[in-house]
Amino acid sequence: MPHINVDQNLPGIRALLAFSPATASVIGELANLLLRTNEGLSMADREIIAAHVSYLNDCFYCHQSHGEIAACYLNGDNELVEQIKKDYSNARISPKLKSLLAIAGSVQKGGKYVTTEQVEHAKSLGATDKDIHDTVLIAALFCMFNRYVDGLGATTPTDLSSYSSRAKQIVQNGYGNHVFESKQPQS
Amino acid sequence: MPHINVDQNLPGIRALLAFSPATASVIGELANLLLRTNEGLSMADREIIAAHVSYLNDCFYCHQSHGEIAACYLNGDNELVEQIKKDYSNARISPKLKSLLAIAGSVQKGGKYVTTEQVEHAKSLGATDKDIHDTVLIAALFCMFNRYVDGLGATTPTDLSSYSSRAKQIVQNGYGNHVFESKQPQS
Repeated sequence: MPHINVDQNLPGIRALLAFSPATASVIGELANLLLRTNEGLSMADREIIAAHVSYLNDCFYCHQSHGEIAACYLNGDNELVEQIKKDYSNARISPKLKSLLAIAGSVQKGGKYVTTEQVEHAKSLGATDKDIHDTVLIAALFCMFNRYVDGLGATTPTDLSSYSSRAKQIVQNGYGNHVFESKQPQS
Repeated sequence: MPHINVDQNLPGIRALLAFSPATASVIGELANLLLRTNEGLSMADREIIAAHVSYLNDCFYCHQSHGEIAACYLNGDNELVEQIKKDYSNARISPKLKSLLAIAGSVQKGGKYVTTEQVEHAKSLGATDKDIHDTVLIAALFCMFNRYVDGLGATTPTDLSSYSSRAKQIVQNGYGNHVFESKQPQS
């Protein structure tokens, strides 16, 4: 039950975005800039970081949503995504991505948990300054999103198929205003 | 010492914004939308929430910066701002603002820490849905900013007068691209 009067036909963050269209527009733009590019980190890598941080923050709506989007980029391999969310160190992903997930995990606890050793390790595995910048900012962004969603008590659909169909739309169209415009008609 | 190669003449978040101008522009816009309006919460209230959350996250650069900006809006009353940051419950501020700072403090720990009782209490003291929305989103935004700044090891000036002069510029001009354009010449 949301803490404020939002459109209950819209799930999760979409109801909050519809409540505040001005901030929603900018938030969508920030999500597009950080998640919808393959410059350095791939879109799959970026969504994996988002899903893992959301899992650590125990935000079901966000880790389910972004886990499904990551799986779309990984040929539907939901099993791999679930493993990465819960225990990336044993998952079939590159050592470089593991080193970035370690940094993201530190950011989730707090900025000062990121160590020089973690950053040097990531760099030794090929991470550029931009990769590290984007990892930290994506992790920090989801510390914001997760708190926005759960802090306002946004509704969390229990029908898991809804996340999968939504993920396909995001993969096709990206983030942006449409995320709250495709409101279902009230019956 | 920053974890990535940024312009060391720029302090705190400004070096990170200069490193990534595309995200910086959107981040500045989001800060303006949430901090530079008196619609519902005053600009002073908004900066107080920002400074308090940054204090709880132990981000010196952010709580010093936004504390100075809050003080500018409060006729230079730095003593009041320092008390709010550390122990708002005994500060000379309205019960309504105290109830919103309680919500912001919960958001800092994690979205699920916000309780229905906290929200109902704030509403009983006159907080609107928009006030609660903005409080949660500002608190969440600073959980992002604090992690961005400390997660990349941004430099933190120790000369406290620099925060005060910067605060006056923000109060006059708002947030936006100029926050990283006014780079000091290298000598």
